[in-house]
Amino acid sequence: MDKTYEILKSVKDGTVSIEEAERYFKRAPFEELEYAKLDTHRGIRSGFPEVVFCQGKEDGYLQTIYVKMAQQEGCVLGTRASAHQYECVRSVLEDVTYDPVSRILKLQRGETELKGGIAVCCAGTADVPVAEEASQTAEYFGTKVTRVYDVGVSGIHRLLSKVELLQSVNCVVAIAGMEGALASVIGGLVSVPVIAVPTSVGYGASFGGLSALLTMINSCANGIAVVNIDNGYGAGYMATQINRLAVGK
Amino acid sequence: MDKTYEILKSVKDGTVSIEEAERYFKRAPFEELEYAKLDTHRGIRSGFPEVVFCQGKEDGYLQTIYVKMAQQEGCVLGTRASAHQYECVRSVLEDVTYDPVSRILKLQRGETELKGGIAVCCAGTADVPVAEEASQTAEYFGTKVTRVYDVGVSGIHRLLSKVELLQSVNCVVAIAGMEGALASVIGGLVSVPVIAVPTSVGYGASFGGLSALLTMINSCANGIAVVNIDNGYGAGYMATQINRLAVGK
Amino acid sequence: MDKTYEILKSVKDGTVSIEEAERYFKRAPFEELEYAKLDTHRGIRSGFPEVVFCQGKEDGYLQTIYVKMAQQEGCVLGTRASAHQYECVRSVLEDVTYDPVSRILKLQRGETELKGGIAVCCAGTADVPVAEEASQTAEYFGTKVTRVYDVGVSGIHRLLSKVELLQSVNCVVAIAGMEGALASVIGGLVSVPVIAVPTSVGYGASFGGLSALLTMINSCANGIAVVNIDNGYGAGYMATQINRLAVGK
Amino acid sequence: MDKTYEILKSVKDGTVSIEEAERYFKRAPFEELEYAKLDTHRGIRSGFPEVVFCQGKEDGYLQTIYVKMAQQEGCVLGTRASAHQYECVRSVLEDVTYDPVSRILKLQRGETELKGGIAVCCAGTADVPVAEEASQTAEYFGTKVTRVYDVGVSGIHRLLSKVELLQSVNCVVAIAGMEGALASVIGGLVSVPVIAVPTSVGYGASFGGLSALLTMINSCANGIAVVNIDNGYGAGYMATQINRLAVGK
Amino acid sequence: MDKTYEILKSVKDGTVSIEEAERYFKRAPFEELEYAKLDTHRGIRSGFPEVVFCQGKEDGYLQTIYVKMAQQEGCVLGTRASAHQYECVRSVLEDVTYDPVSRILKLQRGETELKGGIAVCCAGTADVPVAEEASQTAEYFGTKVTRVYDVGVSGIHRLLSKVELLQSVNCVVAIAGMEGALASVIGGLVSVPVIAVPTSVGYGASFGGLSALLTMINSCANGIAVVNIDNGYGAGYMATQINRLAVGK
Amino acid sequence: MDKTYEILKSVKDGTVSIEEAERYFKRAPFEELEYAKLDTHRGIRSGFPEVVFCQGKEDGYLQTIYVKMAQQEGCVLGTRASAHQYECVRSVLEDVTYDPVSRILKLQRGETELKGGIAVCCAGTADVPVAEEASQTAEYFGTKVTRVYDVGVSGIHRLLSKVELLQSVNCVVAIAGMEGALASVIGGLVSVPVIAVPTSVGYGASFGGLSALLTMINSCANGIAVVNIDNGYGAGYMATQINRLAVGK
Amino acid sequence: MDKTYEILKSVKDGTVSIEEAERYFKRAPFEELEYAKLDTHRGIRSGFPEVVFCQGKEDGYLQTIYVKMAQQEGCVLGTRASAHQYECVRSVLEDVTYDPVSRILKLQRGETELKGGIAVCCAGTADVPVAEEASQTAEYFGTKVTRVYDVGVSGIHRLLSKVELLQSVNCVVAIAGMEGALASVIGGLVSVPVIAVPTSVGYGASFGGLSALLTMINSCANGIAVVNIDNGYGAGYMATQINRLAVGK
Amino acid sequence: MDKTYEILKSVKDGTVSIEEAERYFKRAPFEELEYAKLDTHRGIRSGFPEVVFCQGKEDGYLQTIYVKMAQQEGCVLGTRASAHQYECVRSVLEDVTYDPVSRILKLQRGETELKGGIAVCCAGTADVPVAEEASQTAEYFGTKVTRVYDVGVSGIHRLLSKVELLQSVNCVVAIAGMEGALASVIGGLVSVPVIAVPTSVGYGASFGGLSALLTMINSCANGIAVVNIDNGYGAGYMATQINRLAVGK
Repeated sequence: MDKTYEILKSVKDGTVSIEEAERYFKRAPFEELEYAKLDTHRGIRSGFPEVVFCQGKEDGYLQTIYVKMAQQEGCVLGTRASAHQYECVRSVLEDVTYDPVSRILKLQRGETELKGGIAVCCAGTADVPVAEEASQTAEYFGTKVTRVYDVGVSGIHRLLSKVELLQSVNCVVAIAGMEGALASVIGGLVSVPVIAVPTSVGYGASFGGLSALLTMINSCANGIAVVNIDNGYGAGYMATQINRLAVGK
Repeated sequence: MDKTYEILKSVKDGTVSIEEAERYFKRAPFEELEYAKLDTHRGIRSGFPEVVFCQGKEDGYLQTIYVKMAQQEGCVLGTRASAHQYECVRSVLEDVTYDPVSRILKLQRGETELKGGIAVCCAGTADVPVAEEASQTAEYFGTKVTRVYDVGVSGIHRLLSKVELLQSVNCVVAIAGMEGALASVIGGLVSVPVIAVPTSVGYGASFGGLSALLTMINSCANGIAVVNIDNGYGAGYMATQINRLAVGK
Repeated sequence: MDKTYEILKSVKDGTVSIEEAERYFKRAPFEELEYAKLDTHRGIRSGFPEVVFCQGKEDGYLQTIYVKMAQQEGCVLGTRASAHQYECVRSVLEDVTYDPVSRILKLQRGETELKGGIAVCCAGTADVPVAEEASQTAEYFGTKVTRVYDVGVSGIHRLLSKVELLQSVNCVVAIAGMEGALASVIGGLVSVPVIAVPTSVGYGASFGGLSALLTMINSCANGIAVVNIDNGYGAGYMATQINRLAVGK
Repeated sequence: MDKTYEILKSVKDGTVSIEEAERYFKRAPFEELEYAKLDTHRGIRSGFPEVVFCQGKEDGYLQTIYVKMAQQEGCVLGTRASAHQYECVRSVLEDVTYDPVSRILKLQRGETELKGGIAVCCAGTADVPVAEEASQTAEYFGTKVTRVYDVGVSGIHRLLSKVELLQSVNCVVAIAGMEGALASVIGGLVSVPVIAVPTSVGYGASFGGLSALLTMINSCANGIAVVNIDNGYGAGYMATQINRLAVGK
Repeated sequence: MDKTYEILKSVKDGTVSIEEAERYFKRAPFEELEYAKLDTHRGIRSGFPEVVFCQGKEDGYLQTIYVKMAQQEGCVLGTRASAHQYECVRSVLEDVTYDPVSRILKLQRGETELKGGIAVCCAGTADVPVAEEASQTAEYFGTKVTRVYDVGVSGIHRLLSKVELLQSVNCVVAIAGMEGALASVIGGLVSVPVIAVPTSVGYGASFGGLSALLTMINSCANGIAVVNIDNGYGAGYMATQINRLAVGK
Repeated sequence: MDKTYEILKSVKDGTVSIEEAERYFKRAPFEELEYAKLDTHRGIRSGFPEVVFCQGKEDGYLQTIYVKMAQQEGCVLGTRASAHQYECVRSVLEDVTYDPVSRILKLQRGETELKGGIAVCCAGTADVPVAEEASQTAEYFGTKVTRVYDVGVSGIHRLLSKVELLQSVNCVVAIAGMEGALASVIGGLVSVPVIAVPTSVGYGASFGGLSALLTMINSCANGIAVVNIDNGYGAGYMATQINRLAVGK
Repeated sequence: MDKTYEILKSVKDGTVSIEEAERYFKRAPFEELEYAKLDTHRGIRSGFPEVVFCQGKEDGYLQTIYVKMAQQEGCVLGTRASAHQYECVRSVLEDVTYDPVSRILKLQRGETELKGGIAVCCAGTADVPVAEEASQTAEYFGTKVTRVYDVGVSGIHRLLSKVELLQSVNCVVAIAGMEGALASVIGGLVSVPVIAVPTSVGYGASFGGLSALLTMINSCANGIAVVNIDNGYGAGYMATQINRLAVGK
Repeated sequence: MDKTYEILKSVKDGTVSIEEAERYFKRAPFEELEYAKLDTHRGIRSGFPEVVFCQGKEDGYLQTIYVKMAQQEGCVLGTRASAHQYECVRSVLEDVTYDPVSRILKLQRGETELKGGIAVCCAGTADVPVAEEASQTAEYFGTKVTRVYDVGVSGIHRLLSKVELLQSVNCVVAIAGMEGALASVIGGLVSVPVIAVPTSVGYGASFGGLSALLTMINSCANGIAVVNIDNGYGAGYMATQINRLAVGK
């Protein structure tokens, strides 16, 4: 029997006073929101377990999080972890793995089946850490990823040789620092959504990625949207969302 | 009598069925939010009826809003209205009044008792429109306002001659464009909160009020917080909130 | 039947000489690029016919474009058109229609079947023009759109009452000016991609939409990517791409 | 007898020359200001003893300040202190205490009675240091504080579950980095003033807190004003001012 | 004879009572500040009568100011006046004169003796309005001005041909838009102070004078300080201050 | 015979006194600079007669300049002229011609032989006015120009079809607004210098051309340098300088 | 015989099926681009072998690149190398040389003949590292370089004494931080192209070179274009391109 | 006897040939500039010997400069020196002195007579290093300096108590970080020029001094001009120039 009905019935019956019931309903708008509807929307059913942003987290705190999540979820994805943090977590969670390039600190037991297909492209070798964060994030969430690295627009033939591949996936992640023109060129070559990631790679007037961000936001090509500077994780996440829609979840 | 209480009582009385009441409370998480709890938390009990941002609103749409609010609330406060909008609204709502300086287009029937006390200060005569928006907003909401205009810091004696007055109110609104230093000086003179309003008055490197905004945000004085450029309304509103707390609502 | 196949067949049949075909394929690297491969990847098969950015285009030039595209494609979508441009194009193309809110100037003969589902949300009534540009763009391209307008976060209950709806679509477009917080809140409520559109609505420190853009780019929620300020068209386009992937094209 | 009268009388009597009197009155405008009126406005009566901004202060200088203030006021509040500075001050002032999270270095003898009530909210765990600076500052000045941490808008249910609490205090401090949307949502939920504190937490386009600052300054909600990036102290101070007004000092 | 002295003398003489004098001096801290000390420190003795910033002032208000100042001071200097404002003021004050280039609206009866010497330099003909505002301001205040216009650094010989002249004055005003390099070159050629005025002349990345402002603030040459963009008046004023110090007032 | 030699000879001859000669040489450092060396370096020999920036120039002043230059040089190039200025100048100089697209107002009697070769590329049709300013400037100075318009990178095949052409010229001018990526792609395709011109074309976060400027300055390709936003003239000028070097002047 | 012709002939002959031919022509647009035309455009023929941006590259990776390029090209130019990287590369490639000022790490066997002439100018001694990067890059590519250092515009005579030299080269590189005015003055003195390089030298409002960048982009002089902040390499490269055009490659 | 006269006389005498003299005068435009006129304008006669910006200079290079200048000028002023640089220079120049606050590294033999009078004011104790750089620079150049420190506007009485002093000097240097309002208040109190120095003191939105710079540039007070952020040296230099003009050099 429904709680609302139950209380109303008790009011009618006189087993609950009007004042008590009033207090209950006054709280309801938010209590019900919390414990029923909203809380469940992002849980196991959605297939996106919580992710840990490791950077700046204290050692002890990080250990606790990893151990707790390992128990609850059986897997953990952490981004922007340092080598030191890896050592630290490994001392309490033996089978955690670390990739110094993407800086992903991960616990993943068993195999994840990879489905669908996305491409992760980056302009230069200096963009690879961000690209790997995107790629490995997407793979962690079950997306099949093709890596297309070092295809910056100042040597356009490198990118053009991959057109067929790019035209065959459900989503393209385009990662570039400096002038950030990669997203526009890819946007003109494919008909699927392009997630653009500006990187902080560069010097001088690159302003920590701001120039690349502005370039990408101003792209003339259709079907491009942009995430935060160096946010490989965010791009991998959104590409996974799109890929899941395409493969019917 | 409160709606929630009323319905519960009717349930107990038997004049409303449990099922009807259930339907009502089921909708409550959001409907009640909208029509009862949240709406009223800013409604009559809080003494802050809805306010209309007139700028950019179409003539017909504005007429409808004013007529509807006049019927429901008996009063309307509109900000950033043009002379044209005044004519337009007056044609359907005779007793609306307009102040071309503050650009406030108002319907206020009967007298509002003004309580407590705040001071609205501005640096130059060019800041008066923003100052009047703040002052008239506060007055509309029942706050007693003392105007202290044209007391910019480049002629500090003008401000100093008002110190006793400033030290006697519950809140000071400090409005200035150009270098925006007024808030800091006042902050050092009074022990009550200072709401700082940067204005877009200026030329050259004033950058439409950005310089004044930065000055105010960086103030070394304690007890200063800042609202948006030219946002006299917002300052008058918050000063009223503080004044109400001081006078025990 | 494909052009390439057709010509090859004619060569085999002898109805086209090898030399003629050679000339055709010699031009192909670029001409084919232009007229066949690339053009068609965004052409009829992809369902995204060319779109006209009307703003700033000369009257005569615009008339020519509309007439030519009407002949070739049978339909035309133009964005950012003025009322004057509507008059101008209507004088040469009778059945063109114009919506002064979205500023879309459109020729659409026959009915388009709308498939799948996206939601277009906006924070305030001032954001409606951008929202309509997004909604009508998506509809033009065959996407079923639910409009969820005036649900800004400063009255969060309005948005919360639509949660169920937002959780049922393939993609959400979140449009907001001023503080731009709408995208983050929606991003936390749904598991599908959110396309965020900052608008130039605001005053003072909104800096023509830059503040909203930065808010959205910095969103803590997952699954959000951002398009250019006021770029309703771009959001509608990308939402369509995602929706098509979800409905199996 | 009044000094002015006395001197004028002496002039008339001839015991003071016109020239001597002239010198006196020429100096008066500022001398009188200094020693009487202005100087006292911020002392013991206001209940806000001086506060020390420790960052960048030399060891010896800091020791002197703490010892001197301990003697004069019996208590000292220092902000942005390092662990090293704690050691350094403790060597001369045994009962000083240090909190490494808020970086507050404090001498507080005896108990302070906490009055009224404010809430200090923050969006993420990375914002806690700023939140603690605000909370502990307010408590030092005698304000009762409820901490509501980790209630960022990308998981809106966390915040909504605290609405009743937020609606029961005299002032809310809203602290957030990245997109900074927390203040707007809270502003729409409560009828008391909200002091917004942007933090430098974030990466990429957060620009050291500038993005959060702009978000907050542009908030559409009423009753929000903003202090400097990471300025927890300033928010705690102003919240105390407001709380004091509400509890009748 | 000085007011303070005069009153004191009257007290001694008995023509003013002690009580009357007391009332006068009691008001003094601020009134005297306003009407005597401060007012006169920038008043007749200092030779800098009040100046009117005409831009944005209402017609009636402007007429009143000019008439009142004409009566009190016998002369008026107004900056940034429009042709319309000239007509408007002339209708109530016949002998007012207007220069459409500098936009100075002036009443000056009799001859002012010009003393000392400053040079006002500008880079291009488009900077002449700002240069004339500086020159005429300085002349109004009694400074002898040599105009050295159209000597931009991209044709350095034009400037070099004036070196001897520049080395003979007490102060140089250097006015330039676009790249703003004029001040640095002059700073390296003379041993007197250089007041640099960035102008809003330019296009593209001149950002309304910001680029020139930054150039001038970053000058490697010694003896350069900068006023606001287009602030010819401010430069003329400060150059006059320096010139007066050099000629012994 | 050289002036210096002549005077020295006269000194030796005694027809000029030492004192007279001394006066001459004392003036010389700057006079000679002006009238001889420096002045001629950009004069007729260099083939770059003076150019008039028409925008903002008064009618009468413009007429005088054109007439005077027509007499002295036989030809005049004016940029950023309005249709009104054309009428105005034509009334005193019949054979002046005006192009409303490039806004060039030109007097050119006789034929100029066009030498060498440069390419002027632009991304979109909205960039054509800047492109024409560049092209016509280069042609006025005797450079043979190939126009390659509407070759933006979001449809990369359009640009690629012109590669052979671009690889055959002495210099490429690359003009683009919005994301400004054109320069990088061209820079990777050719081995000659590329002059990049950002344009103010765009909306939203294009910030009047700043985004395109930053993109171009950050280009990863070699051999690219950038001129001011919309500065087609400057690009045409520099491309001419390079072309002249290539064709042996 | 041409491939296109050959395949078409085979189709006609029936030795190749229509489907096979179709697959070939579908791929052609990009395949042909890649392997023939584009790839060769930047190779040995252009005289610009690949260059290594050392900064941030891992030791092992850098060793591999140098060894491989030394084998293939016989020479390597690396920019922004650290002393540590020098040691590291020297351990595998004995005859590599390192200049700690320019930070160039170079392998150059045999003598390069230097041709033509450019001048590399810089404003202050702090700009010398960037100037040397430019000079040594140009020399590596075979350009004869004259160094004109420490000729900042605040001591204009230093620059003027070099005018004759500057007027004799094919291109001038102008390097300056702080106010960056050097480029404008040089631009007015020479008739050849000037490549301007802003440097990050400075403090305060130099904003890491942004001020100098804006100064240079806004230059009033003709024939100036700008590369990225501190990009000495880029300037040396482009100056070489121009010099080669002038000397007929 | 003058060089020009001497050579002309030799020509007349026949001891110098016309050709030799011609070569001399041909070089003269620049040589004479350099060695005679320009060079001396900042030399011993002007009383401003060269100053050394120590920051970033290499040890050996710095030693050489100090030793050489000590020999030539008998005194050296160096700014922004580190403690290490002091040790380093002292090892070769025993009587050099160093002030760790102002970071001035100075050699001054004998007493300098201090003349005239300027005031150096700063807002907080954190601004003292910049203030001392200004004060000691001015003293080094022979100016009598009164220090007025810690007089920030948030405690305006501190500043007001110094008004008489400020009104008695020839120039005021106003130094402040954070909100930078000090200059405006002083500008309204004195009739002599005010040199404003923004400092990088602050946090959050102070943006390394940019906010203070903008405040000062936008000052409403007359007679204020601004130097670069933290440029105490520049302010002390210019204040000296003004003071010298006032005391008749």
